[in-house]
Amino acid sequence: MMKEKFFKYIQNLQDAITFALEKMDGKAVFKEDQWIRKEGGGGRTRVISNGNVFEKGGVNISKVYGPLPEAMQRYFGVEEADFFACGLSLVLHPVNPMVPTVHANWRYFEMYDKSGEKVKSWFGGGQDLTPYYLFDEDAKHFHQTCKNACDSHHPEFYKKYKKQCDDYFWNTHREEARGVGGLFFDRCSATQDFTMQHWYNFVTEVGDSFLEAYLPIVEKRRDLPFTKEQRDWQEIRRGRYVEFNLIHDKGTLFGLKTNGRIESILMSLPPHVQWHYNHSPKKGSEEARLIKVLQHPVEWVNF
Amino acid sequence: MMKEKFFKYIQNLQDAITFALEKMDGKAVFKEDQWIRKEGGGGRTRVISNGNVFEKGGVNISKVYGPLPEAMQRYFGVEEADFFACGLSLVLHPVNPMVPTVHANWRYFEMYDKSGEKVKSWFGGGQDLTPYYLFDEDAKHFHQTCKNACDSHHPEFYKKYKKQCDDYFWNTHREEARGVGGLFFDRCSATQDFTMQHWYNFVTEVGDSFLEAYLPIVEKRRDLPFTKEQRDWQEIRRGRYVEFNLIHDKGTLFGLKTNGRIESILMSLPPHVQWHYNHSPKKGSEEARLIKVLQHPVEWVNF
Repeated sequence: MMKEKFFKYIQNLQDAITFALEKMDGKAVFKEDQWIRKEGGGGRTRVISNGNVFEKGGVNISKVYGPLPEAMQRYFGVEEADFFACGLSLVLHPVNPMVPTVHANWRYFEMYDKSGEKVKSWFGGGQDLTPYYLFDEDAKHFHQTCKNACDSHHPEFYKKYKKQCDDYFWNTHREEARGVGGLFFDRCSATQDFTMQHWYNFVTEVGDSFLEAYLPIVEKRRDLPFTKEQRDWQEIRRGRYVEFNLIHDKGTLFGLKTNGRIESILMSLPPHVQWHYNHSPKKGSEEARLIKVLQHPVEWVNF
Repeated sequence: MMKEKFFKYIQNLQDAITFALEKMDGKAVFKEDQWIRKEGGGGRTRVISNGNVFEKGGVNISKVYGPLPEAMQRYFGVEEADFFACGLSLVLHPVNPMVPTVHANWRYFEMYDKSGEKVKSWFGGGQDLTPYYLFDEDAKHFHQTCKNACDSHHPEFYKKYKKQCDDYFWNTHREEARGVGGLFFDRCSATQDFTMQHWYNFVTEVGDSFLEAYLPIVEKRRDLPFTKEQRDWQEIRRGRYVEFNLIHDKGTLFGLKTNGRIESILMSLPPHVQWHYNHSPKKGSEEARLIKVLQHPVEWVNF
C-alpha cells in the first residue's frame, strides 16, 4: 500500500539525512523524541543544536490519522471524513550567515468517506533555500539539482513547481519572497497518464536530491569569516522567516489545527532573532542586493 | 462628533504617554514617523529604542477609513460598507527582565451603509501586563489600577473585562496566557442605559489610568540586577509574545488586512528573541512558577 511504502521511504530518508548532517557538523548530534498523537499516530522528531555548522535544526517525520478535524474540513471544503497524512519536514538554521537556511518537506495524504473508502490521495512537498548573503552560484546549484530531479519525470515540472515555490513562499505583507525558492508542489493526484506510482517516483527523486542540493553549499561557505554586523543581518532576516511561518505557512497551520506536537512544528523557528523598527540596508550593499532579488524572483537556470 | 473627539483624545494621550516614558527612560527619545494610507487616513508612529529602560517600544496612533476591505467584510459578516477606525496602540519591551512588557490599545470604530449613514459604532481596547519574573505585588497593583478605572462606570466591568482579557490573550497552541492580563473589551456599543458618551467616559478613564498602572512597576524594578540566564529566559518568553501576535492577535490581523503600515503594526515584536527546542524551566524555579500562573489565570484583586 502506498501509505506504508511512502512512510518507510521517509523513515529511511530521515536516517540518511540526519546521518549526513551530523557528519557535516562534526560536533552536534541529533536528539530524538518520539511522540504520540492521542487522536491517532505520532512522530519521530530529531533536533540538532549548537553545532559547529548548525545552530538549530530539525528533521522530523510524522504519521497522523483519524477523523479530519473541523478546521481542516472547512479548509478542504468537505464534510466529516477520516484522513491519513505522513511526511518528513526539515529546517536547518546554520550559525554562519554565509550559509543559507534550508527547508524541505515531502508528504502524502489520503482522505476516506464514512464507509472507510479512500476517496482522494495526493503527494505534496518541495525544498527551498533562504540565503542571508547571496552567492549566485549557490542558488544556481540548488535550482539545477532541483531541475535534474524533475526532468526525467516531466519536462514541465521544474518550471511549474519553481514558479509555485516563488508564489507560495511570498511574504505578502512585506512584498518579498522568503528566499530564493526551489520547488513546491501540492495536491499531486493520479491522472490518466500519471499514476500515484509515477508521483511516488517523482517525489522520492526530489527527496533523494536534497543532500546533493544543499550539502555542497554548506561545505563551500561554512568556514567563511563573518562580522557581528553580518550576524545581526542574519538575525533580522530570520525575523522574516518567523513572520512567514507564523502568518502564512499552511504547513504550520495544518500542524496546529490537527493537534500536532507543538515543539515539533515550531522547531522551524530560528534560535536567535531580531526585530528592529524600520530597518533597511545601505544602498548598494550586499544586503540591499539580496532584498532586490527577493522582491523580483530570478530564473536561476535555463529551461 | 464622537470620532473627532476621540481622535483628539488619543492624540493628546500619545503626547502624554511618550513624554512620561522619555522622562522615565532618561536616555532614549521617541522617533516620530507620520505615514499616509493610500485608501484613506494614516498615522503617527513613535518608536523608542536602545534606552536605559526601554529596549524597544512604540506608542502609535492611526486613523484609517474608506471602503471596508473584503477580508474585513467576511470578518464582520457584512456586505460592501465604508468604515472609520482610529486608535492608540502601544507595546513596550524593557531591557531588564525584571520589568514586565506592557501592551495597551484604545480604539473607536464606525461603519456606514452605501448611503453614508452610520449603521454601527463601538469602542474597544484594554491594557495588559507580561512579566518575565513575577512579582505578585506588581500584578496586584496593575489590576487594582484597572479596577479603579472601571468601578465608577459599572460595578461588573472589571470582573467582566478582566476575564475577557484572560480569554483573549490565550496562546491556544501553548495552553497558557501571554501574561498576567488586565482588561480587554470590544464592540462596546450604545444600549438604552449606556450611551456612546458613557462608553467614551469609561474608555478614556482606562486610557488615563495607563501611566499610573505601569510606571510605578517600572520605577521599582528598573535597577534590579539580572543575570545572562535571566535575560535568556526573557528572550525565550518574548518568543511566546511573537507567537501570540502573529498567530492569534486580531489587532495585528486587522492591520495587515486593512493595508496598514507594516512597520507600525509590527513594532510590537520584541528586539531580541530566542526559540529553543522543547525548553522548560527547572522544577521549583521562579521561571517554573511563572509558567504555572500563566496556565491558570489568577484573581489578583478582590471584587
